[in-house]
Amino acid sequence: MKVETHKLHVSTHGNNHVVNVTDVIGDSVRTGTIRNGLVTAFVVGSTAGLTTTEYEPGLAEHDLEAAFETLAPADAHYAHEATWHDDNGHSHVRASLLGPALTVPLVDGRLTLGTWQQIVLLDFDTRPRDRSVIVQVLGSA
Amino acid sequence: MKVETHKLHVSTHGNNHVVNVTDVIGDSVRTGTIRNGLVTAFVVGSTAGLTTTEYEPGLAEHDLEAAFETLAPADAHYAHEATWHDDNGHSHVRASLLGPALTVPLVDGRLTLGTWQQIVLLDFDTRPRDRSVIVQVLGSA
Amino acid sequence: MKVETHKLHVSTHGNNHVVNVTDVIGDSVRTGTIRNGLVTAFVVGSTAGLTTTEYEPGLAEHDLEAAFETLAPADAHYAHEATWHDDNGHSHVRASLLGPALTVPLVDGRLTLGTWQQIVLLDFDTRPRDRSVIVQVLGSA
Repeated sequence: MKVETHKLHVSTHGNNHVVNVTDVIGDSVRTGTIRNGLVTAFVVGSTAGLTTTEYEPGLAEHDLEAAFETLAPADAHYAHEATWHDDNGHSHVRASLLGPALTVPLVDGRLTLGTWQQIVLLDFDTRPRDRSVIVQVLGSA
Repeated sequence: MKVETHKLHVSTHGNNHVVNVTDVIGDSVRTGTIRNGLVTAFVVGSTAGLTTTEYEPGLAEHDLEAAFETLAPADAHYAHEATWHDDNGHSHVRASLLGPALTVPLVDGRLTLGTWQQIVLLDFDTRPRDRSVIVQVLGSA
Repeated sequence: MKVETHKLHVSTHGNNHVVNVTDVIGDSVRTGTIRNGLVTAFVVGSTAGLTTTEYEPGLAEHDLEAAFETLAPADAHYAHEATWHDDNGHSHVRASLLGPALTVPLVDGRLTLGTWQQIVLLDFDTRPRDRSVIVQVLGSA
């Protein structure tokens, strides 16, 4: 049993950009020796989150954003913005709801995702960002 | 320290069916030898998710669905549906918001759930499904 | 590789109280010997949840609650309340959406949080509560 940690950098456009990070996470896991265990991805920062979806343009470029716009509209009043004189109150709220972490089992060297299930990073901030994603693998060879 | 992986099959009615999977997960963990560690359940596919709730008919058959209907109404327009000519855009959005994974500590052979806290699978798809749930346990005897 | 389990007690005001638990979780981890691995925090009970946010008054005392009020309004009808003659149907729904668990990688003895990213417990119940939070650490020294 051991621990392997990988640090990834993901460039985003912000503004609810949905980025498919399945391959970069899978590739980083394969640089290690663990083939059975848990893979946890964690995005550093409080205006982005991780989940899974079927990565196709309809969901990635329209439908997911529409739900977050219902939950925390970009043009609503946010006390956060009054405090800091910025414009990303909705970004913070959306990120907290989605959560910064995702754990996927690794079995015989393969993430147990479905065929139409990809790992995505959602960047809710109001400008392009360079994100750090920590990928930590615990398990055995 | 070791890794034990169990694969469960869960039949659902779809349509926001809330299935209590606490016992099948607990039973699968008890077939192994690990008594202290992390239990991660992961539902394969992009139209279902896992969380905890008090499993009783009010929440399971009405209240949880009402919240998801607010977030992603079944009869709204989804670009996903235009792409694929199907009817489950809301199912995908709800599943991404909830997330496919749940991790619960295992302490002295017991999941650290509260008395009125059960693990539930929510199937948001628009038809009955047979779901695969991967239960992975990391820890020590 | 080993497992270390800590049990924390967190007093809350309920009513969407957002409690910064970053330091109590970090302190509990430092009482152990593991310096690289996974830290999973899990709140026991079905009316509270865990996530991360920038912990400042605007988000903690106003903005997060506003989003949850959109998702599951406190004064809406809940079948849960008709069943049990209580008033916390919205608390349960909000907790299920947020989820009871959060996993954060531990690298060289440090949780990989961003500078403005804190771990918070949201207590959605309608009265003050004493919460148990299980902190489980898996990894190596």
